[in-house]
This record gives sequence, C-alpha cells and structure tokens, in this order.
Amino acid sequence: MSERILLSHGSGGELTHRLIEELFVAHFDNDQLRKLSDSSLLGRRNDEILFTTDSYVVDPIFFPGGDIGKLSVCGTVNDLAVAGAQPAYLSAGFIIEEGFPMEDLRRVVASMAREAKQAGVQIVTGDTKVVNKGKADKIFINTSGVGFLHPHLGSSLNGRGIKEGDKIIVNGHLGEHGLAVLAAREDLQISSQIHSDCASLNGLINKILNQVEGVRMMRDLTRGGLATVMCELAGQANIGIHLEEDDLPAGEQVKGLCEMLGLDPLYLANEGKFVAMVDARSADKMMDVMRADPLGRNARVIGEVVEEHPSRVVMQTRIGGRRIIEMLTGEQLPRIC
Amino acid sequence: MSERILLSHGSGGELTHRLIEELFVAHFDNDQLRKLSDSSLLGRRNDEILFTTDSYVVDPIFFPGGDIGKLSVCGTVNDLAVAGAQPAYLSAGFIIEEGFPMEDLRRVVASMAREAKQAGVQIVTGDTKVVNKGKADKIFINTSGVGFLHPHLGSSLNGRGIKEGDKIIVNGHLGEHGLAVLAAREDLQISSQIHSDCASLNGLINKILNQVEGVRMMRDLTRGGLATVMCELAGQANIGIHLEEDDLPAGEQVKGLCEMLGLDPLYLANEGKFVAMVDARSADKMMDVMRADPLGRNARVIGEVVEEHPSRVVMQTRIGGRRIIEMLTGEQLPRIC
Repeated sequence: MSERILLSHGSGGELTHRLIEELFVAHFDNDQLRKLSDSSLLGRRNDEILFTTDSYVVDPIFFPGGDIGKLSVCGTVNDLAVAGAQPAYLSAGFIIEEGFPMEDLRRVVASMAREAKQAGVQIVTGDTKVVNKGKADKIFINTSGVGFLHPHLGSSLNGRGIKEGDKIIVNGHLGEHGLAVLAAREDLQISSQIHSDCASLNGLINKILNQVEGVRMMRDLTRGGLATVMCELAGQANIGIHLEEDDLPAGEQVKGLCEMLGLDPLYLANEGKFVAMVDARSADKMMDVMRADPLGRNARVIGEVVEEHPSRVVMQTRIGGRRIIEMLTGEQLPRIC
Repeated sequence: MSERILLSHGSGGELTHRLIEELFVAHFDNDQLRKLSDSSLLGRRNDEILFTTDSYVVDPIFFPGGDIGKLSVCGTVNDLAVAGAQPAYLSAGFIIEEGFPMEDLRRVVASMAREAKQAGVQIVTGDTKVVNKGKADKIFINTSGVGFLHPHLGSSLNGRGIKEGDKIIVNGHLGEHGLAVLAAREDLQISSQIHSDCASLNGLINKILNQVEGVRMMRDLTRGGLATVMCELAGQANIGIHLEEDDLPAGEQVKGLCEMLGLDPLYLANEGKFVAMVDARSADKMMDVMRADPLGRNARVIGEVVEEHPSRVVMQTRIGGRRIIEMLTGEQLPRIC
C-alpha cells in the first residue's frame, strides 16, 4: 500500500477495494464485513432495537489515553448503553484528507478494532471518502450503532418515574477527556499528566441493569459536561436538581489545571463518565455495584432530585452559597470529540 | 437564529439545542427525534435487520437535480434497497464548517426531509459537529440506515444462485449524476442541461420483489459506475459477464459531453440507477414492472452471465470488437458523492 492516502482510495475502484480488504476487513475481522457488501445483514432479533449516530472530529487525533478511533467506538457504544441498550453493531464512515499518512490510519483502525473487541461490538459496515488536501482536517469518523434493549427494561431509560428524593450518581472523576485533549494541542504548550477517561461503559452499565432496580435514567457526560446534561434533564423532566459541590469527584490535577486555565470541570467533556438517577432505596446497592468495577471505582452520589426550583439545577457550593447552574452557552473548547 | 453556523452550534450547549429543535426536529418531524435523546428506540420487529452507512462529501453541494441533502438520503436508502431491504430509519450526522450559511443548511435539511418523506423513511437520530473555518469544506453528511428484509426474501440479495444465461438489466440512462456534478463545478465553465439522476429506488425495487421471481442480486451504480460494479460481481461470484455496448442506455447529452471530456459513461457515478441479475425466464416480467415505473422507464437488458471467461467482464463493442472491462483504477472525478 502507498504510504499516504490518495484520492483514488476514495474512488470506489481498485485502491478503495484494496484499502477495504487489507486494512478494514483485516482489522475489524467479522463475517458480515467480509462479504464486502454495501450493507450488512444483522439477523433477526425479537428485541427492541435502538439506533444512534455520532461524528468524531477531535483535534489532535492522538491524545493521552486515546485517539479518534477509540473515541469513535466508545462514544457510540456509550450513547446506546446509557439508553438501556446492549450495543451490538457499529458502522464506520471515514472522511479522510488526501495525503493523510497510511501509518496513522492503521493506528486509528487498529485502535477501533481493539476497543470494539473490548466492548463486545462488531464493526459490520463502512464507507470511505477521500477529499482533496486542505478540504478536511486529517480524518473525521462517523460511527452509528445498533443495539438491543436490556432484557430487564420495558422501554429505553428515558427518565420516566423520576421523583423527589431520587439520588444522582456519577461513576468517577470529571473533566479528564476535555483537559487531556486540550493539553495535547501543540500550540498550547501545556504539560500535564492527565489522560482521557475515554472508555466503553456498556459492561458496567449492563452489571447495573442486571442487579439494580429503580434506575430512572442515565446519560453520558460528553460535550457540555455534567452541567449541560443536568440542565437538559431538569428542563425535560421538569424537576429540580440539587448538587453538592463537595461531592463532585475531580482529580487534583484536573482541579489545578482548571484553576490555571479558568475552566470549570462541570462543563468539560468526559468520554467514560455517565450520570444516573436512581430510586433512593437502590442508591447503596448501585454504589456497591459501581465501585466493584474499575470504571466505577470513584463513583459518588453528587446530589438528588428535589421539589423546589423545578427545571432548575442548583449547586450547594463549598463555601456555603448556592449557585444556579446554567447550560453551556457559547463554546468552551471546540473539537473535543 | 444567527445567519451563519458558529462553533457554538456544535458545542452541545444552548445553540446546539436550538439548532436541533428549530431546524432538525422541525423538518424531520417524527416522534423519535422529538424525544431529543442521543439514541432512538425503533421498536421490536421480528424481521431480518439490515444496516448500512455512507458519508457524503459532494462538491458542489447544490447541483442540477439535487443537493448533498437529497443525495445523503437517496444513497443510503438505495444501499439498503438493492440488498433486498425495505429501508425504514436513517441517522444524520453533520460535520459543518464554521461560517457555513444558515440559509444553505436550511435548504439542505429541507431537501433531506422531502426526500425522506418521498422514500417513506424516518430520520430518527442525529449529530452535529462544527469545525473551525478551513478545517472542512462547507458541509459533510453521514447517513446510516436500518431496514428490514423484504418478506419474499429468505436472505439478502447476495448473488446466490447466479447462473449462465441470467439476464443483466439496468433501470435507465448511465452517467447523469457524475456529469451533472462535474458540470456544476464553477471552475470548469461547462454548460449543460444534464440533471443528476439522484432518486430513491426503494419503491421500484419493492415492486420488483413483490412481483418478480428469480432476482439474483441488485447493486446501485455509484462510485466507479457500471464497469466497477460488474467487475466486482464477476470476481466475487466467479462468473463471466457479457455486455452489449449497443444496449447500454445513455442519453445523447451524456454521450456528447463524455466524448468532449474524454470520459466513459461506464465509469461515471449514478445515484438513481441499479443493475440487477435475474433468471432469464423472469426477464420479460421484470422489464414490464420496471418500465411501468417512472424510475425504470428506460430500463434495458444490457447483457448476460456466460460460462466463458469466469471473473471477467467482456463487452461486445458497437464496431464489432470485444473489450475487456476493468475496474476503475486511479480516480476519475473526486467528490462526486
């Protein structure tokens, strides 16, 4: 194979075929993909089907703790998992800039394959487009995902049944993905040891749904961070949300760097974190299940659903005041995912 | 709404929400999307599920006969339809360049909505990313699709049962999409009346599968054109393919422009054309069904499966010679879809 991506790799002709067979099929390695058809037959399943999509444009494409390939698998797996689905199949759509190093593409694809295996999903269909040099920034990846509703659930986890007193739990430290990507940008000259938390959460979430009753909803904390998700939920379900600043889990390095840069971990993107609302009677059980899993080791109860201030998120601050949390306005850090 | 796309439209915060609600939900208008969840619950179906993906990077984004939005719906609908699926649900992933005119986005989204309605599919989940000016070319769209196998089929149309004598049929004139896009490029100063053939083929294909027995396979004729698809099939099924140049349907304008530009309609992309292989005994019936539909009005039998030259495609030329057809090598026209 040539050392760089050429326009011909996206022509649909011979080079496209070689790229598909020697790179994608070789790494993603499954029967559906091997058929080299434009669509994939997933079989028959008498379960509720869930469907999601995300495009990934993260810059830089390699960062501590992950890369655009790993991210493109985790992100879509997590979108399905937090809705209560067991993710099963992914598609992969690549838009690549002419001249992109083949070696980097190999790294990205290998990373996708590794993460897919880890998460127990198959990448079964794909597409590759190449655009002229300067018309895209290195590589963009879309993954769409198909999953099937967890057998214990009658419907997707959409917040039905949320009520006063429900506990709000996150599975670990906030802000690591956003800061790791930011620090990896060459022009910023920031040195940090922070790694992205980028991880597939379907294994942990499956354990929760197997063992814990009364889970009302879950959401992954990506763009806009915890603050934005909390505001969305408060608005959509018309509930009051009370958070305790003291209980928000954040690593010392994240806190330090955020202070230095004037950023707020509440608004930073995560790629391996989710928030759950759960019946208060199940909160202890849920914490036990989460803490027994490496991805939930630092789980914390961070607040609860309250009757006061419907549609609003209010945080009890460390210094004793109350802060109204608003949705992210403007943009904090572009191309974080 | 602002008149241009801002980075904040992709932040996941307030402007993203407004864009989703005021533009995407308003146009795509269905219950799943209205839930504003990151994934969509499609319900339970005891049918074989098919799944496909494609990214669209066509340049220019508006061209005679269509635009990137219409194309992004037709293309993915057709990928499912030719596999024997009834397309049902699409996702839409947008990557937009900062500064892209909101008016153009509105046009593209309205066009997607119109074509989805026409094709009888719902756009049920989506994603929007915005990249800094100069980091993408206007707008790229990924659509993935979920469909269900046509009830008359036991498996997807994968060429099983192809045998000597099977007829090869296309549904109309070749090369219109490729030439329409090419002629629309401002720098080329070509004036032509050619319109893209961009169309959703699922209605016509459904009629065929309802009424015609012995359909072995179908393929849409996009990148690489008829020649590339024929070569793929000959290779994959290890069959010989005989084509008659005299029978290839092409409009006079396409022929003229191709001669002028030194292009071959056999290799040009189409977005509303497919080729089918069918049992010879069903060929007449198939032609009747196709010609009764506006999208099959110019259908032609263009060749047949032969025992000689397995894995090769040979065309009987107009002047009496034989030409071996090879897969597209290099790239003819970049960013045609």
